[in-house]
Amino acid sequence: MPIDAARILARCDALARHSEQPDGVTRVFLSPEQHAVSELVLRWMGEAGMDTHVDAIGNVVGRYEGERPGLACIMLGSHLDTVRDAGKYDGILGVIGAIECVADLHVRNVRLPFAVEVVGFADEEGVRFSSTLLGSRAVAGTFDAKALDQQDVNGIAMRDALLQRGFDPQRIGDAARHEGDVLAYVEFHIEQGPVLEAEGLPVGVVTAINGGNRFGIEISGMAGHAGTVPMALRRDAYAAAAECALAVERIARDLPEVVGTVGRVEVQPGAINVIPGKVRFSLDTRAPTDALRADAVQRMRAEFEAIAARRDVSLNVTPLWDARTTPCSTGLQRQIAEAIHAEGVRVHHLPSGAGHDGMAMCAIAPVGMLFLRCRHGISHNPAEAVSVEDVATGTQVLARFIERFTAPHRA
Amino acid sequence: MPIDAARILARCDALARHSEQPDGVTRVFLSPEQHAVSELVLRWMGEAGMDTHVDAIGNVVGRYEGERPGLACIMLGSHLDTVRDAGKYDGILGVIGAIECVADLHVRNVRLPFAVEVVGFADEEGVRFSSTLLGSRAVAGTFDAKALDQQDVNGIAMRDALLQRGFDPQRIGDAARHEGDVLAYVEFHIEQGPVLEAEGLPVGVVTAINGGNRFGIEISGMAGHAGTVPMALRRDAYAAAAECALAVERIARDLPEVVGTVGRVEVQPGAINVIPGKVRFSLDTRAPTDALRADAVQRMRAEFEAIAARRDVSLNVTPLWDARTTPCSTGLQRQIAEAIHAEGVRVHHLPSGAGHDGMAMCAIAPVGMLFLRCRHGISHNPAEAVSVEDVATGTQVLARFIERFTAPHRA
Repeated sequence: MPIDAARILARCDALARHSEQPDGVTRVFLSPEQHAVSELVLRWMGEAGMDTHVDAIGNVVGRYEGERPGLACIMLGSHLDTVRDAGKYDGILGVIGAIECVADLHVRNVRLPFAVEVVGFADEEGVRFSSTLLGSRAVAGTFDAKALDQQDVNGIAMRDALLQRGFDPQRIGDAARHEGDVLAYVEFHIEQGPVLEAEGLPVGVVTAINGGNRFGIEISGMAGHAGTVPMALRRDAYAAAAECALAVERIARDLPEVVGTVGRVEVQPGAINVIPGKVRFSLDTRAPTDALRADAVQRMRAEFEAIAARRDVSLNVTPLWDARTTPCSTGLQRQIAEAIHAEGVRVHHLPSGAGHDGMAMCAIAPVGMLFLRCRHGISHNPAEAVSVEDVATGTQVLARFIERFTAPHRA
Repeated sequence: MPIDAARILARCDALARHSEQPDGVTRVFLSPEQHAVSELVLRWMGEAGMDTHVDAIGNVVGRYEGERPGLACIMLGSHLDTVRDAGKYDGILGVIGAIECVADLHVRNVRLPFAVEVVGFADEEGVRFSSTLLGSRAVAGTFDAKALDQQDVNGIAMRDALLQRGFDPQRIGDAARHEGDVLAYVEFHIEQGPVLEAEGLPVGVVTAINGGNRFGIEISGMAGHAGTVPMALRRDAYAAAAECALAVERIARDLPEVVGTVGRVEVQPGAINVIPGKVRFSLDTRAPTDALRADAVQRMRAEFEAIAARRDVSLNVTPLWDARTTPCSTGLQRQIAEAIHAEGVRVHHLPSGAGHDGMAMCAIAPVGMLFLRCRHGISHNPAEAVSVEDVATGTQVLARFIERFTAPHRA
């Protein structure tokens, strides 16, 4: 068995020690913890036979040349930053697993008809500056210079934080790669959901990074005395909101792989003996294609309108967020599926409900993702867990995929 | 027209000026405002030909003797205290209207084959000591001495507040009346709901003071990422709670005159992108008979259990309040209905969803209630409003009822 899964997990443990806090991992963009982790990753990349550098925004990059120097590359990677109170694997596993695959090529002295690059993105979660995908946007050439003015909670602008760490904010453009240089971007990542566990599978092929919409919804009815207003004379804002929540659930269930969530609910006046006069709630819906997403949103909004009209309450829907779907390359999906099949594992396709660096990287390259089962689907939590057997299987799939990789056509 | 509705409204206005606050009325038990109001009411009672006294807990009592002194009485009344930020009519109108009826008897020098007493109860709302019906419980002989230890927000015990106002807490029992002394207790009160307005009627006969139940309900499911957990694998506590709220509404609608309200809702963790893992909500349900109330509660709880089982979430129902229904005397209902009919008004029967002093007075006498239409059903609010025409009609109905009153059998 060429892949050393125990070493991968030991390295994830080692990176997890670089955290703002003792329990759980918190490691944000341009922090001392990030610097320490970058140093470790650079060392492991070098040990795996890669030429390394830190790019203009702090991404850690290793390059393993192909049959001859300067070939276009397949880029593997994920992010090295974390949310607050995170686990050890979200992002990190994809970087360490990819290094392990290159180490295997290096040990066997295998050179491929393309270069292999591994990137550890400096910021994907966007915790510090409330702006996500900073590392991959820089590589994709879509970094928005306006983000440099954003401040962290201590009032430090990103521009100054970069300067303090020795980066030149003027030169972030230097991190950008060009179409043609990168044949494909492929990310190995924990699922962050319970689907593979429910399927009894260690890995799965990602079909798309779901797009999503968020809305703030306000319903106004008529507050009243819970004892004295007969049911037939009520305009109960909460009963209307409850009906909307069940409509969201029903519509999402009816559409393939669509999800819809009412996560925030505020009922006014919120007294045990008063009929609610006003309710505010949130809607988050995501779908693996933009057509499905538009269909879901249209159906939900139409249902809200119908409920409000029937109940004689007013409805106000405010769009908060609208993100397009990033479809994964069908060619890469097929190649990843073949590698899974070759490992003797049943092939399962699933969309990614969470966001990933591929959302930025799709600007310059076809994107593929390989998901690894995580325990109970838990993520963004110190309880995040993977098994050593799954990590071995997933990394072997990745290694097999790399060796057989051929550049896909752009989707 | 013997009844002077304009004077009634002017007196309600005069009492409203005795408030802790300039806008809206706040007048609590044993306050300087209560003392001032008692003085005014005692004077108006005296002017109406009544012998007056303040009883052992501060209730204001006027007695208009019948054909000979010492006859058993019909007791009319309501309360003179208010909730915080109240209107001018809740409670007060019943006292002032009853005084007007006695004034009319007095002017015409009519003596009845029974005495007429008017009581202005010192505390019904229970604002200051979180214990309701203090005045009427004292009269009914059901005052609980343990209440004397209860403290207001300033840490003043009821016992000390009584002493400060010159009342002897040891002698509250002196306020108690005995069965036989009081032939009936009849209260004239604004509806505090929208039924009479919807019916286009100035007055209605109350069938019962509804009993009620309150519960705190907690549902625990599984929190999760709003993007990554497919609908089929969710255990969304809020979707379950929404379904429960709609079940409450449906069951209350299906049962005659039953109401059910979910007024307080708390969703955890309450983030736009997280499936709710826990929801706490309140249920308040009321019914005009205890049998209907038990049926409603049983159906709602059974439906909650079924929803929780189907959705694989846990359910915890905590009873918070359980109050029996106070049925109004059928004999008094008939006499009140006859008086309404004699005024040329269509007779409509309705339950009271709010609590009233009759809930205490039923311990010693048959209870009847006459409801007056109030604008938009609004109460416990400075916007509380009645029309002078309705007040004239309602008070005339009350006067007619009194003159034709015959003692009913106990229900």
